[in-house]
Amino acid sequence: LAGLQTEEPNHVSLLLAAPETRFEADTEHLLRRHWGDTRNEAVARPQGPLKGNTSPICGAKASEVLGFKYRSWQSSQPVGSGHQQRRSFSSVSTVSSFRCGDVTLSNGRILEDAELVYEVHGKPNETNSNLVLHPTSFGATHDDLGYRIGPGSEYTLDTDKYCVVVVNMLANGVSSSPYRGYGECYKRISGLSHWPYPSIYDNVLLQARLLEDVFGLSVIGSSDGHTGSSPLALVFGYSMGAMQAYQFAALYPNAVQRLAVVCGAARTSPYNKVFLKSLMTALKTDAHWLEEEERFTGHPMRGLKAFGTIYAGWGLSEEFYRNEEFKQHGSFESLNHFLDDYVDGFTDLDPHNLLAMLATWSVGR
Amino acid sequence: LAGLQTEEPNHVSLLLAAPETRFEADTEHLLRRHWGDTRNEAVARPQGPLKGNTSPICGAKASEVLGFKYRSWQSSQPVGSGHQQRRSFSSVSTVSSFRCGDVTLSNGRILEDAELVYEVHGKPNETNSNLVLHPTSFGATHDDLGYRIGPGSEYTLDTDKYCVVVVNMLANGVSSSPYRGYGECYKRISGLSHWPYPSIYDNVLLQARLLEDVFGLSVIGSSDGHTGSSPLALVFGYSMGAMQAYQFAALYPNAVQRLAVVCGAARTSPYNKVFLKSLMTALKTDAHWLEEEERFTGHPMRGLKAFGTIYAGWGLSEEFYRNEEFKQHGSFESLNHFLDDYVDGFTDLDPHNLLAMLATWSVGR
Repeated sequence: LAGLQTEEPNHVSLLLAAPETRFEADTEHLLRRHWGDTRNEAVARPQGPLKGNTSPICGAKASEVLGFKYRSWQSSQPVGSGHQQRRSFSSVSTVSSFRCGDVTLSNGRILEDAELVYEVHGKPNETNSNLVLHPTSFGATHDDLGYRIGPGSEYTLDTDKYCVVVVNMLANGVSSSPYRGYGECYKRISGLSHWPYPSIYDNVLLQARLLEDVFGLSVIGSSDGHTGSSPLALVFGYSMGAMQAYQFAALYPNAVQRLAVVCGAARTSPYNKVFLKSLMTALKTDAHWLEEEERFTGHPMRGLKAFGTIYAGWGLSEEFYRNEEFKQHGSFESLNHFLDDYVDGFTDLDPHNLLAMLATWSVGR
Repeated sequence: LAGLQTEEPNHVSLLLAAPETRFEADTEHLLRRHWGDTRNEAVARPQGPLKGNTSPICGAKASEVLGFKYRSWQSSQPVGSGHQQRRSFSSVSTVSSFRCGDVTLSNGRILEDAELVYEVHGKPNETNSNLVLHPTSFGATHDDLGYRIGPGSEYTLDTDKYCVVVVNMLANGVSSSPYRGYGECYKRISGLSHWPYPSIYDNVLLQARLLEDVFGLSVIGSSDGHTGSSPLALVFGYSMGAMQAYQFAALYPNAVQRLAVVCGAARTSPYNKVFLKSLMTALKTDAHWLEEEERFTGHPMRGLKAFGTIYAGWGLSEEFYRNEEFKQHGSFESLNHFLDDYVDGFTDLDPHNLLAMLATWSVGR
């Protein structure tokens, strides 16, 4: 990640990590390497073990150096309701499609008529120096990320200052995916053998093309150090979005001024893969899974509930449950009440897209 | 746990914990309370954070004070093969049944014709002062625990010194269980609504009766301090066996000289319950689960594989996978090779008994 270690004073990076989410090993290694090398003393270094959803960076310093304010789900939305209730937000935005034609992926397979759907909040300034790239995370769409984007300093991404480009990850059901358009009959779906399985890297290559073709940035050609345009003000990603952010900064260090990765790793650890395999296996346990055709013949309600219950054990920390934080943040009376609500958030997701996204996550590069 | 804090010099206890198995919170609390109060300075206290499968007790001291040697699965058997390969062992043993009649459980329901099946290794001495109680763990039978019992100091439980009573936990398929006798047709099984769901406490009450009636120990009457017979030399349990050991020592402190709990907690934490719920939900996702009759109509191979895959993420540590310890201990070439083998260990278990044991674990007392 050369971009993180540059001596140029206009390159600043910011890493946030919540180690109790169990994806810590690779990230902590990078974190230590990075904080050990950082040239910017104004940015606070992490001290002592990190707890829960705390950040290794001092909020005031982050705000001072980066003009960036972290907005936690703890203060912004009730727990477990992410997928069900769409949040209203006041930022003016437009949703557009970027068609890339047939794309040969890094595994040699072809993604036909590839399409990235993206949402733009705010406006680029004259020199394009205020662009923020924000790739989506596992199971999320551009809609789900709107709560942290808006005008004013109470938002993580302030559209008075920044133009935020939220790009839907491939397979999330909005950009090119095994299945788009909820509600269609399961009989019409072709099996997952037709899905070419793009990687994190493939996502990032298309994002670079989008930023070049639509916003006029010099990204792909920036590797020789001559960008010819402003770098991105920030690449910000959570979880799988963080994986894309890492990959983007590693590929195009001169096109990225700041990098913020939250709960993400640069690659997928073996332990993480065991988690992902348990999700895939539980989902395919549903009676609607037709192994020989690699598809579901009907909505796998049981499988999705198992999926959500497994996720509840990995997506939230031991501390979260021990302290019964669901009582404070979500007004849930009991563990089972919370779990039922959390699991419900998974039951209307498309199972083919979930499997496709898990595959991208599991390959992890 | 009054028995742990007695000042009588002949009462010694030993706690082993592997915190990375994620059942640490309650156990660590007890551990600290106990080590802070211990009167026996010859027993080593834990120093610094515990790692992997290490023990907080110094092996040499444990051996010196307790004549007890911890035998790890790491050195005694290949990883992941626990359920498939039955180990041969040289200890002379007999398997017997203890019939208790109809037993009213702590939840008010009745376990009809209750039966504890137990295996005895070695012989009681004249004063009955060499008896060891060893309850089984989740999914294990007396057969599975034989590898650590035998004549000589290379075994954890040396039958030259001790008489080891391995008691099968209720619902494990050997003692009273929803289902006994693998291979019978699934159509003959009555639903789990008929199972009265005994608790850890109910198990321990029956174990006390067994020790009184068969071995002549004074257990139940020992609460007033007058035992009239030697206390158990040791109660030793792993995981759910450790829960039973904790409960036994708490109920009958004067009947227990030593207590060894490995990877166990005195009660089931909320986080642990999330894990258990994910196992139950995944198993019931199988098409063979008939919700209205609370039973499986055929062998749930898919559900058991999901079950085993989830277990792989919780039963072994992040460190285990990061260091690829399966390559050292089990000669597995890859993560997937290891997982396939680990999961195979679950596929011939009876799903009704698994659900019944999970219920006992989840109630946790």
